[in-house]
Order: sequence, then C-alpha cells, then structure tokens
Amino acid sequence: MSWRHHGHGRGRAGYHHGNLREALIEAALALIPESGPLGFTFAEAARQAGVSPAAPYRHFRDRDHLLADIAQQGFERFAEALTAAWNDGAPDALTALCGIGKAYLAFARTQPGYYAAMFEAGIALDATPELRDAGDRAFAILRNAAERTIAGLPEGKRPPALMVALHIWSLSHGIASLFGGRTTPVRAMPMSPEDLLEAGVLVYLQGLGLPKQG
Amino acid sequence: MSWRHHGHGRGRAGYHHGNLREALIEAALALIPESGPLGFTFAEAARQAGVSPAAPYRHFRDRDHLLADIAQQGFERFAEALTAAWNDGAPDALTALCGIGKAYLAFARTQPGYYAAMFEAGIALDATPELRDAGDRAFAILRNAAERTIAGLPEGKRPPALMVALHIWSLSHGIASLFGGRTTPVRAMPMSPEDLLEAGVLVYLQGLGLPKQG
Repeated sequence: MSWRHHGHGRGRAGYHHGNLREALIEAALALIPESGPLGFTFAEAARQAGVSPAAPYRHFRDRDHLLADIAQQGFERFAEALTAAWNDGAPDALTALCGIGKAYLAFARTQPGYYAAMFEAGIALDATPELRDAGDRAFAILRNAAERTIAGLPEGKRPPALMVALHIWSLSHGIASLFGGRTTPVRAMPMSPEDLLEAGVLVYLQGLGLPKQG
Repeated sequence: MSWRHHGHGRGRAGYHHGNLREALIEAALALIPESGPLGFTFAEAARQAGVSPAAPYRHFRDRDHLLADIAQQGFERFAEALTAAWNDGAPDALTALCGIGKAYLAFARTQPGYYAAMFEAGIALDATPELRDAGDRAFAILRNAAERTIAGLPEGKRPPALMVALHIWSLSHGIASLFGGRTTPVRAMPMSPEDLLEAGVLVYLQGLGLPKQG
C-alpha cells in the first residue's frame, strides 16, 4: 500500500484521493477471507486501513458501495485472466473453452477476496454503471468462446450461445465454490477440480454433438 | 422460538439444554442473510438470542462449532428434500435427476441460512462426526440417483457414478449460487434457473450417450 509512505497519520490532507480509495479496497480484501464479504463494517475497513472512521465516506457512500468498487476491479482483473487464457494458443475451441474454465478456477483460488465480492456479496451488477460494464466485458469473453465452440456445429443444430456460456459458467462456478477451496464437502475427491471441470465440459460438448477434439 | 415462553430472562437455570441450542441456531440463521456465515461473532449470536454472552459456551466451543451444528442440521433437511424429490413419482431416471437438481435450487432459495453454513462458511465436513455423517447421507442420495441414471448405459460405456454425481452437483450449485438469488451477474437471463438446469442436465446426459427421455 504505497500511500502509507506518503503520510500515514498526517490526517485528511495527507491522503491522495486515489491512494485512500486503494487503501480501503486493500483493507476490505484483507478482511473478506476472515469474515466474508458481508462480515465487516465500514468502520472496521477504516481501522484496517489505518484511517479515521469518517475517511471512507470521502470515496464511498457505504460499505456496499465499497464492495461494488471491489467487484468492479475484480471483474476487470477477471476479464484480463480470461482473455489471457483464451489467447493462450489453444489448438481448438474445446481446449480453449476448458482453458477459460481453468482460468476461472485459478481466479477463484488466488483471488478469494475479489471472487467473494463479485459473486457472494449479493451486490447487484447494476449497482454502478462501471460495475455493470466490467461484468458485461468479462461475460462477453465467455460468450465469445461459446460462440466459437458452437460454430463447429451444423447451422440448424446450434444451441443458443448464451445458454452454452451460462452452462459452462455455472459448472465452473460450482466446481470452484464446492471443491476449489481448502475444505470440500466430499470425503474423497476422485480427481482434481481442474480434471473434474475438463471431464464435465467434454461430456457437455459431446452432448451438443461436438467431437471430443475438434 | 418456543423456549422464550419458558423463561426468557430467568438466567442460566431457566434454559433447557435443547432449547438454548435451538435458540442459538435460530439466532445465527437470522444473522446469516444480513452478514454472511462468517460475519457475526459468538457474542452477537447470544445477543440476537437474548441470552448472556457466556451462554453459547454451554453448547458450543466457538462460533465455528455453532456453524458446524447448523450445517449438520442443514444437511439433514437437505437430505429430506432430496429424498422427497427423488421419490416424487418420476417416470424415468433423467426426470428424477432433474427433480433432484430442482430440489437443490429450491433449498438454496428457501433456506439461505442453512445453505450458507453448509457451503459458504468454509466449515470442514469432518469438523464433527455428526456433520460428516449428515453430509455423507445427503451426498449418497445424489450418488444413488447418478447410479440409477448410468444404469441405462451399456456396461462398458458407463462413466464413474461419483463423477456424474459431482458434475450434476456442481452444475446445480453454480446455477443456484449465480442465478438463484435476488441479484444475478447477467443482464438478461434467457430462462429461469430451473429451465437452465434442466437444459444443462439433458445436454450432459446426451453427452453420456443417454437418450433424452429413457
């Protein structure tokens, strides 16, 4: 948190606009793994950031507004991760789709604070226009991948790309949430979350009528 | 909360063992929708239940122990709901599997407090032997449904029932978590969560080589 070097303790005038905002986001991201995305107050985020209880109101209306800002930043990073996975030189659409699913699992595992703010805080996607745009951009990557995938089917046999995208998203999200963390609700997992996802995507694509490798 | 009638305010001796435990569970279930499964302290649960801050320690080691007890009760109710869906006179295995998935969605929607304690609190399934047993019993229903489903395939072409059960579970969980609540991360959902799940299960079963209706 670079702002600390600029004058922690100097009072209101000491904080640069962008730095305080980032400091509050970092504070919330540190609190979320312990108490969940709804389990901290605005005052606790201020304390964690080392600022006065009133300071957060300079940037955010309330805690949910802070969470919406975190979710927006999360969707932006998420879109970067999905784009990188998609561009990663996949030889075919099916491998590319699995690559996106695995980027989803990796994001959930490495960015639990963002993931919780994006998907577990009950923040509406239209809470702010910026959040809506960021969420739409991330989803567009998945939807494009679904469109590329079903392009391999004869025209009359193509399911709606939106439905395919929602299915792949739901399967990835379910596996990430249930089996991607430290604790899982099954005694002995027969395979890794990544392999479970890949197997599921392949069965699903078979069901659409796509060959195993295109 | 029937214990209230027996002597709210009478002090330690006034509470029957089972009633205090139930009162604390009810208090936590009331707190979870607002603050998440990790967002309340043991003392807040006591206050919500109208008992002294020390009272919870008569039944629970700490808040996570209380959450494990709630998750156990949740898995017991969940197993009842899944069993009812399974026995609901389904004409074939595919319809039965969708019935179980829809019972999953209904449980997530109507029992958000239990659902969060079971799946979003990071409580390990082996936190208590009772929790492990309850979780295992609920999963056994899903696994049996998966076994009945793949029994329709020739012997050499049957996938592992455990894997099928985990896929259906993950898809149901993903749809429930992403699209089953008040807020969803997609601008315009093309269909209800129930229809999205049914379509996904049917494509998946097609991919296994099962006919659309068996």
